[in-house]
Amino acid sequence: MTYCVSINVENGFVACSDSRTNAGFDDVSVYRKMHTFVWPGNRVFALMSAGNLATTQLVTRKLNADVKSGALPNLLSVSSMQEAADYIAAVNMNIQNLHVVREAGNTSFEASFILAGQIAGSRHETLMIYPQGNFIHESDEHPFLQIGETKYGKPILDRVVNRQTFLERAGRCALVSMNSTIRSNLTVGPPIDLLIYEKDSLDFPRQMSLAEDDPFSKQIAEAWNEGLIRALQNLPKFYWESLDNAPQQPSANSDQSY
Amino acid sequence: MTYCVSINVENGFVACSDSRTNAGFDDVSVYRKMHTFVWPGNRVFALMSAGNLATTQLVTRKLNADVKSGALPNLLSVSSMQEAADYIAAVNMNIQNLHVVREAGNTSFEASFILAGQIAGSRHETLMIYPQGNFIHESDEHPFLQIGETKYGKPILDRVVNRQTFLERAGRCALVSMNSTIRSNLTVGPPIDLLIYEKDSLDFPRQMSLAEDDPFSKQIAEAWNEGLIRALQNLPKFYWESLDNAPQQPSANSDQSY
Repeated sequence: MTYCVSINVENGFVACSDSRTNAGFDDVSVYRKMHTFVWPGNRVFALMSAGNLATTQLVTRKLNADVKSGALPNLLSVSSMQEAADYIAAVNMNIQNLHVVREAGNTSFEASFILAGQIAGSRHETLMIYPQGNFIHESDEHPFLQIGETKYGKPILDRVVNRQTFLERAGRCALVSMNSTIRSNLTVGPPIDLLIYEKDSLDFPRQMSLAEDDPFSKQIAEAWNEGLIRALQNLPKFYWESLDNAPQQPSANSDQSY
Repeated sequence: MTYCVSINVENGFVACSDSRTNAGFDDVSVYRKMHTFVWPGNRVFALMSAGNLATTQLVTRKLNADVKSGALPNLLSVSSMQEAADYIAAVNMNIQNLHVVREAGNTSFEASFILAGQIAGSRHETLMIYPQGNFIHESDEHPFLQIGETKYGKPILDRVVNRQTFLERAGRCALVSMNSTIRSNLTVGPPIDLLIYEKDSLDFPRQMSLAEDDPFSKQIAEAWNEGLIRALQNLPKFYWESLDNAPQQPSANSDQSY
């Protein structure tokens, strides 16, 4: 399984992906699911993938090969993010179909992608490409996109993210969303790739790869836990809980076993 | 779809369920999924159900009928929570099989249950009954049980609930878990049934049914949103965000659009 999320805010976009790939419980590996394609001053793309690993690897190889060989279209020739998504979708479909023809088993060769990027002269955008070749665009009402194991990490995004969220805060929010997913689903795991792109920079974005024991990653998780416990403590009381006779729960640090 | 959750803590248990039933997008109804069976001083059961509505309704009808007719076993005759779960599982299997025989279509007649309760002389317990007739027990490491649309509401439970959590706080936590699910999945909806049982009371538990516009429900949702935003604000900063030159995000109330 996989979890990838992008958040597109006014000041730029963030992309975050896990690195666990499993073909059964006894065949777990680490593969990065985030790939960047950068031509400084001209265009920046970040591509995250979920689904069949062989398909996604072939897709990124083909994208690189097309740029090298000059085959049209390619990531350097497309004039808009939509065109880029169209092109990647077509590559994805071709590769999926190749395998479906060869082998008619139960294996799914499907892959889906999140494409985030900016082309000089246009605004930064994020799109989600389905295995069927169609795609959707982020919107003001829904600035984040998710692929893979999306449910555990969605409530936090639903509640706190909007277009005006500051870029770095969106980055922290993506980390929290990822952390919630990793806690709840064993097939999503570190290292976590985080990318933060400031709009109009048109250069290599900030990128960090957070290993399981990364101190920053741990600090984020601990601070988030504490924040949630505090949020729970501050919820309104039930009508029958009077301050006089209700027992007082000890403070955040003492009443939790972790 | 459905979402039901129980949390079993030292001081008692809470049970929380939504009330939306849908057989397609154009056939949405309100049905309570929580049923209580109380014999004051003797035993208290709360039963929550997910799955085929006809099956779950027949199961609760049969449970009531068996008590009335004195057919053995019944909820009043069982001597332990495990026996109660065994009995309910058998009733469930019989009813499911009845329909499978009659009709071999694609319809699923499956239903799953969470049983929470206490029998005089034993401790309060919660169990989850699968459609296949087997069941699992809550544990010190995993004091909560979920059925239905479980993923959206799980991260908060994973992080803040343990055996030592105070009963009323566990109740608020269940409401937050439910609220997160309702926000993310249209097929889970109010009114929300919340039940809070204090251990050894062996009497009717506190119960509330929170409609969509219930003021307490709204207060909980708003306070939770504020708490999450505050938690996000208090996360550690990235190494490049110095306090001198980083832009300051406005306070919790002004930077969010809701």
